[in-house]
Amino acid sequence: MRIFILNGPNLDILGKREPEVYGKTTLWDIENRMKQKYSQVQFEWFQSNSEGPLIDALHKAMGGAADGVVINPGAFTHYSYALRDAVAALNVPVIEVHLTNVHAREEFRRKSVIAPVCKGVIAGFGPRGYELAVEWLLQQN
Amino acid sequence: MRIFILNGPNLDILGKREPEVYGKTTLWDIENRMKQKYSQVQFEWFQSNSEGPLIDALHKAMGGAADGVVINPGAFTHYSYALRDAVAALNVPVIEVHLTNVHAREEFRRKSVIAPVCKGVIAGFGPRGYELAVEWLLQQN
Amino acid sequence: MRIFILNGPNLDILGKREPEVYGKTTLWDIENRMKQKYSQVQFEWFQSNSEGPLIDALHKAMGGAADGVVINPGAFTHYSYALRDAVAALNVPVIEVHLTNVHAREEFRRKSVIAPVCKGVIAGFGPRGYELAVEWLLQQN
Amino acid sequence: MRIFILNGPNLDILGKREPEVYGKTTLWDIENRMKQKYSQVQFEWFQSNSEGPLIDALHKAMGGAADGVVINPGAFTHYSYALRDAVAALNVPVIEVHLTNVHAREEFRRKSVIAPVCKGVIAGFGPRGYELAVEWLLQQN
Amino acid sequence: MRIFILNGPNLDILGKREPEVYGKTTLWDIENRMKQKYSQVQFEWFQSNSEGPLIDALHKAMGGAADGVVINPGAFTHYSYALRDAVAALNVPVIEVHLTNVHAREEFRRKSVIAPVCKGVIAGFGPRGYELAVEWLLQQN
Amino acid sequence: MRIFILNGPNLDILGKREPEVYGKTTLWDIENRMKQKYSQVQFEWFQSNSEGPLIDALHKAMGGAADGVVINPGAFTHYSYALRDAVAALNVPVIEVHLTNVHAREEFRRKSVIAPVCKGVIAGFGPRGYELAVEWLLQQN
Amino acid sequence: MRIFILNGPNLDILGKREPEVYGKTTLWDIENRMKQKYSQVQFEWFQSNSEGPLIDALHKAMGGAADGVVINPGAFTHYSYALRDAVAALNVPVIEVHLTNVHAREEFRRKSVIAPVCKGVIAGFGPRGYELAVEWLLQQN
Amino acid sequence: MRIFILNGPNLDILGKREPEVYGKTTLWDIENRMKQKYSQVQFEWFQSNSEGPLIDALHKAMGGAADGVVINPGAFTHYSYALRDAVAALNVPVIEVHLTNVHAREEFRRKSVIAPVCKGVIAGFGPRGYELAVEWLLQQN
Amino acid sequence: MRIFILNGPNLDILGKREPEVYGKTTLWDIENRMKQKYSQVQFEWFQSNSEGPLIDALHKAMGGAADGVVINPGAFTHYSYALRDAVAALNVPVIEVHLTNVHAREEFRRKSVIAPVCKGVIAGFGPRGYELAVEWLLQQN
Amino acid sequence: MRIFILNGPNLDILGKREPEVYGKTTLWDIENRMKQKYSQVQFEWFQSNSEGPLIDALHKAMGGAADGVVINPGAFTHYSYALRDAVAALNVPVIEVHLTNVHAREEFRRKSVIAPVCKGVIAGFGPRGYELAVEWLLQQN
Amino acid sequence: MRIFILNGPNLDILGKREPEVYGKTTLWDIENRMKQKYSQVQFEWFQSNSEGPLIDALHKAMGGAADGVVINPGAFTHYSYALRDAVAALNVPVIEVHLTNVHAREEFRRKSVIAPVCKGVIAGFGPRGYELAVEWLLQQN
Amino acid sequence: MRIFILNGPNLDILGKREPEVYGKTTLWDIENRMKQKYSQVQFEWFQSNSEGPLIDALHKAMGGAADGVVINPGAFTHYSYALRDAVAALNVPVIEVHLTNVHAREEFRRKSVIAPVCKGVIAGFGPRGYELAVEWLLQQN
Repeated sequence: MRIFILNGPNLDILGKREPEVYGKTTLWDIENRMKQKYSQVQFEWFQSNSEGPLIDALHKAMGGAADGVVINPGAFTHYSYALRDAVAALNVPVIEVHLTNVHAREEFRRKSVIAPVCKGVIAGFGPRGYELAVEWLLQQN
Repeated sequence: MRIFILNGPNLDILGKREPEVYGKTTLWDIENRMKQKYSQVQFEWFQSNSEGPLIDALHKAMGGAADGVVINPGAFTHYSYALRDAVAALNVPVIEVHLTNVHAREEFRRKSVIAPVCKGVIAGFGPRGYELAVEWLLQQN
Repeated sequence: MRIFILNGPNLDILGKREPEVYGKTTLWDIENRMKQKYSQVQFEWFQSNSEGPLIDALHKAMGGAADGVVINPGAFTHYSYALRDAVAALNVPVIEVHLTNVHAREEFRRKSVIAPVCKGVIAGFGPRGYELAVEWLLQQN
Repeated sequence: MRIFILNGPNLDILGKREPEVYGKTTLWDIENRMKQKYSQVQFEWFQSNSEGPLIDALHKAMGGAADGVVINPGAFTHYSYALRDAVAALNVPVIEVHLTNVHAREEFRRKSVIAPVCKGVIAGFGPRGYELAVEWLLQQN
Repeated sequence: MRIFILNGPNLDILGKREPEVYGKTTLWDIENRMKQKYSQVQFEWFQSNSEGPLIDALHKAMGGAADGVVINPGAFTHYSYALRDAVAALNVPVIEVHLTNVHAREEFRRKSVIAPVCKGVIAGFGPRGYELAVEWLLQQN
Repeated sequence: MRIFILNGPNLDILGKREPEVYGKTTLWDIENRMKQKYSQVQFEWFQSNSEGPLIDALHKAMGGAADGVVINPGAFTHYSYALRDAVAALNVPVIEVHLTNVHAREEFRRKSVIAPVCKGVIAGFGPRGYELAVEWLLQQN
Repeated sequence: MRIFILNGPNLDILGKREPEVYGKTTLWDIENRMKQKYSQVQFEWFQSNSEGPLIDALHKAMGGAADGVVINPGAFTHYSYALRDAVAALNVPVIEVHLTNVHAREEFRRKSVIAPVCKGVIAGFGPRGYELAVEWLLQQN
Repeated sequence: MRIFILNGPNLDILGKREPEVYGKTTLWDIENRMKQKYSQVQFEWFQSNSEGPLIDALHKAMGGAADGVVINPGAFTHYSYALRDAVAALNVPVIEVHLTNVHAREEFRRKSVIAPVCKGVIAGFGPRGYELAVEWLLQQN
Repeated sequence: MRIFILNGPNLDILGKREPEVYGKTTLWDIENRMKQKYSQVQFEWFQSNSEGPLIDALHKAMGGAADGVVINPGAFTHYSYALRDAVAALNVPVIEVHLTNVHAREEFRRKSVIAPVCKGVIAGFGPRGYELAVEWLLQQN
Repeated sequence: MRIFILNGPNLDILGKREPEVYGKTTLWDIENRMKQKYSQVQFEWFQSNSEGPLIDALHKAMGGAADGVVINPGAFTHYSYALRDAVAALNVPVIEVHLTNVHAREEFRRKSVIAPVCKGVIAGFGPRGYELAVEWLLQQN
Repeated sequence: MRIFILNGPNLDILGKREPEVYGKTTLWDIENRMKQKYSQVQFEWFQSNSEGPLIDALHKAMGGAADGVVINPGAFTHYSYALRDAVAALNVPVIEVHLTNVHAREEFRRKSVIAPVCKGVIAGFGPRGYELAVEWLLQQN
Repeated sequence: MRIFILNGPNLDILGKREPEVYGKTTLWDIENRMKQKYSQVQFEWFQSNSEGPLIDALHKAMGGAADGVVINPGAFTHYSYALRDAVAALNVPVIEVHLTNVHAREEFRRKSVIAPVCKGVIAGFGPRGYELAVEWLLQQN
């Protein structure tokens, strides 16, 4: 099974960024741990601080390169209708993941413009959220 | 590990209710499957169409009877501040689960008054959502 | 023909409650009058001040026990998405009835969260509203 | 008993207009059927695509020419405060009727600027809605 | 003098529930203290996590069983129009009491759907709020 | 001086319409009184229950036929952007007049879509409002 | 006849203040002209940049010292509920006057918190607005 | 090909009306130019300041008299749900045209209640907008 | 114990002002009664129709001159963020009191910008509200 | 004549993306067809999934390299104030084009933050929309 | 150069007021420090807890007494349209200064009704904000 | 001292872009002038029309490369929550600067999603705004 894990802005500094909010685990740590844990999965792991490359990655997934997508759109969650349209174009399931419980923070974090075109949403479980998403995808196949 | 699985209004007719939206699996099916799958867990499985008994169940969990709670508040999600206050009173993690992706349906389903006081939210994965929640709880201990 | 007549909170005190608004007829009077007038109908007449029992009654109607439902949800009209979901699950016509013209009173009474999943709405005709609803149901069969 | 039946814009093309929404019965069919069914009633049946003639008809009813009015204001329901003021001027009961359940359609159809000054509202029962309104008027006298 | 003291959801766990917000005094402590302090009053002390029983209690007060009512509707304050209607039906004074200053907390706590039909509101004075309400009722007679 | 006095919907029934709100003076009374009082003015007095003729009248005024316009748009005040555009096209002063103080009535009466393109507004002075408007116009020339 | 003419903040600099908006006439000019024109009126002419003295002046009018009040509340129009309450306490007619057409300027100027408790409003006629108000008051007596 | 060109309120004074906004070309000029330019088209050119006649014209187009409709609803764009319903009833393409770029003017001009039931919208190109609409219709056949 | 009793605009005319709303008791009556009733309290009783002096009084209380403050901000309640800031600066408890039940009147009276920084709120109990506030303060010490 | 045709996010997958909504024509097809059809035009055809390059392209057009711009901003339409500012900086006409009728889809698609600074908008005509825009530009020169 | 430094409500207790928010420096300290630092400037330093005197001070500045104004309106920032009008009347630059970053505090502090008529705004730099404003003014001359 | 000066979209065309709004000074002019004026500062001067590179620059500043940041986010100010998160991650002061007084322009420019996580905001002082920000940073060290 081929799974794309896409990460939006500021996730490259995870571990260093507001650690009291986001924890001290880096994105690199998560990637490594998951590649070990789900060795049967062929991961494409990607992060960008720009909308364009994330959209490109989704288009690539659209072309048959992926069986499922896990996306943590970071702050793009709240306004990037461009990402939304790219997700809507996909014919494989896309799961929106957030490290923190977005409902327990600033008001603007409660609104996701992308969630309506996803398969589902997982929020608040830290790095484990990525794993739950992958476990669901694995069981679908 | 002791886990409470609490279910709100109309989940008792799951399987019969708008099956094109909610599927044909009954709550009973889900309960049985999970009890088999997670035999190490001591489940307390509860459903009610009223706020009162759900609040009572949460109070019981508060008294040390549970190590974690999974709650699918059904339509109470959108207005029951009474349930919210009961969840906020707990000192064990509470996970809000929805069978469907609430963000892809009517506008009113996007608002949860309970999520801000939960550990996290899982929505859109059908009966598997309960399992993902339990798996996270299991890994915490 | 079997018809359920369901009544929400405070309708048990009809006749005593703000008679300048709701009139002096009791729910009991209405029930008796209608049982006489529509003797061919097998009525199930129910009132509750709680959401749960009303949802249970709707579930019962769902199981083939009724050919039509008339519901006056009282104040639940304005916020009980739980009742709405129960109505949406039915495969027989449900008619929302209000004794008073809800549009001529407080602003909050103009909003019904249940009406969008009903067959239709009748408001403002006092106890006669129940009869108009039943007459429509009778003519359908 | 003299009853005015007033119909707003686009009701002249009832039967031809979006039949999947409004059905195939014409306004003429409804008029004929009701004149037969309620032969004791002296009907004044009127339709216009303009506010002015509808207001004129209401003024005529105001002058003692009618004992009751049934009005389906069509799309004027949602913005014609001019019609509202004309209805408010009447001293005989006015009943607002809609063929479809306006609450189950576009958001804008849920708002009626006329209903607050009517006796009551009947919506969602197709042509039968007119009859229910007339039956209530008949019983009042 | 006969006074009903009605308490809404989660007040049964007062003292254990978020003590940094609500304090450590239990509802039982408050009841005992007040029965001692106002020994001339015939109290009916009631708590429920459901709307129905609270409405029933208000109906009982309506029937001449009480000379005044003190109600802390808990979270029902913010959405229970059913409770509001029950309060509006009473012909004895009803006082809304909150332990905390609801205006200094989450936005949703500032809105009371019940207050407009009460005699008055007392908020922010902890258990003493009940006493102030009773003192006002006592002085009225 | 030539002045157009334009009157919108339901002003033809002034005197008969809700006299406790609008008084018992008819539009005809006002017209007669003003023609006597301001005999030096060449009045064009017009009333319609439709937007079209009122717009036509404004267009006529635009063509040099009037030195000023007094308009009481009735309920059109609150939504007729068509009238607004017609007023905006004029190069003579237009004064909006209301018999009642629209700010002391229903919320919707407080909004005028026409006032922003008028010279000014006079509201609340009954039939005298027309006279004040004319007096201002007279003094301008 | 005794009339109070009350003026709110920044009207003391009328004539110097944004003359392209408010004109070059000073408040002093208006006062003098009106005292000459309406010599039969006993004017009390007052201006303040503070709410307190304006409220005091209204209280004085309330005590029988005036037969009518003309008030141009300036920017207090838009938020001074304190002035509103003072106006509401009066038992003589109060007329709100604005030099400019407040509906043709910034959005915030369209809202008056005082108008609902006045007799009427005159806006957009420059200094003549005061005169129209006085003329109406004179004709009432 | 038969095309209806329908024009709403105040378009009859095009050329004279606020020429700095709408230009100096009259509707007559546009009609003549287009009849010459598209001589193969059988035009029905219509203007009205009232909703009724415009709805009638749309109904006529509905009866097979037109292969396409171009409508500039003028100010009716912003509130005439009656026109919207008439457009929705048509089974030939309807194109909404505006002379000016409505998005660059007052806020209320940005909202069209008719556009959602049209084929498309063309705004901001002056009289050429009509031609672009016709060119698209011509190419469809 | 030293207590400041601060009163906002229009409370100086209490007793004369809309007596059907506010009663016939004057502020002077309340002051006298309370000084007699709570003779152990050293009261500083103050009223102003301006924000400035009320802020000054609060500053004085801040400097150690008071052990508690009771404030009826009158209409300032609804917009005076300046008073709010002054209250927030205090280190003794401040209680907001309203004579009437502000929730049962105009919508704007339901919003208090000051309550979030007070200890608590008492509304609807007439002059007795001041006494309840003082009784709470007394019991604190 | 030199015309820039700029295309925003996800237009690179046109033809493959939700074909039931956007059709099966690719952007490449449109480009080729237009280059053939308007051979007299010197086109600069550009697409990007990022704001930056689109802004750069607009800046290039600003420097005299284009006589007109046609832009389909895709989802950037709804939030990219950065694109808006770039368009506003241009001194050649910019036309906003949408393939679909944005008014007939999700609510968020109705709002364009760019349209207010464009020459005009064309929406709903599929690939032909680009051609209509070019035809207008051609006729301007 | 003559500069007015105007300070609104509660700035007289700066240093004592919520020092964790506003710091321990008094307004007096700031004034002294600035008079030393900018000895070439002729300062007029003023503070008031009332709108009236602040408006008077602005009027004085308007009369040629100042070459620039620095104003910290305190809580008046959020509602005093009276101050706004006074600022708008000035023909010398006015700079709005806030000690704290108003955007990082309560929602209501983000709105300034005065800023739109100022030259600019400086917020968040403590007492240094006054100095930055003065430095800009100095460099202008 | 090392200071990053970051500039968002369209600031690269400063001087050419709407010079009547933004002036004729280029970003290059500002940079040169400031490098001369503050020769003791080690500047990193950066501009981008994309979010990504601006976020990268902020991340670089986060890694100890800067002692302070001045950012003019251009139009990103109003919606880029991604930039906001990057600013929030920094542990050195960040100052938001705008050339124009954003409060005196379009409504959307008044909202900054970044300001709440900055040290402070300076707006309206043209290129001098950058200097004021730097001066504050210099004085902090």
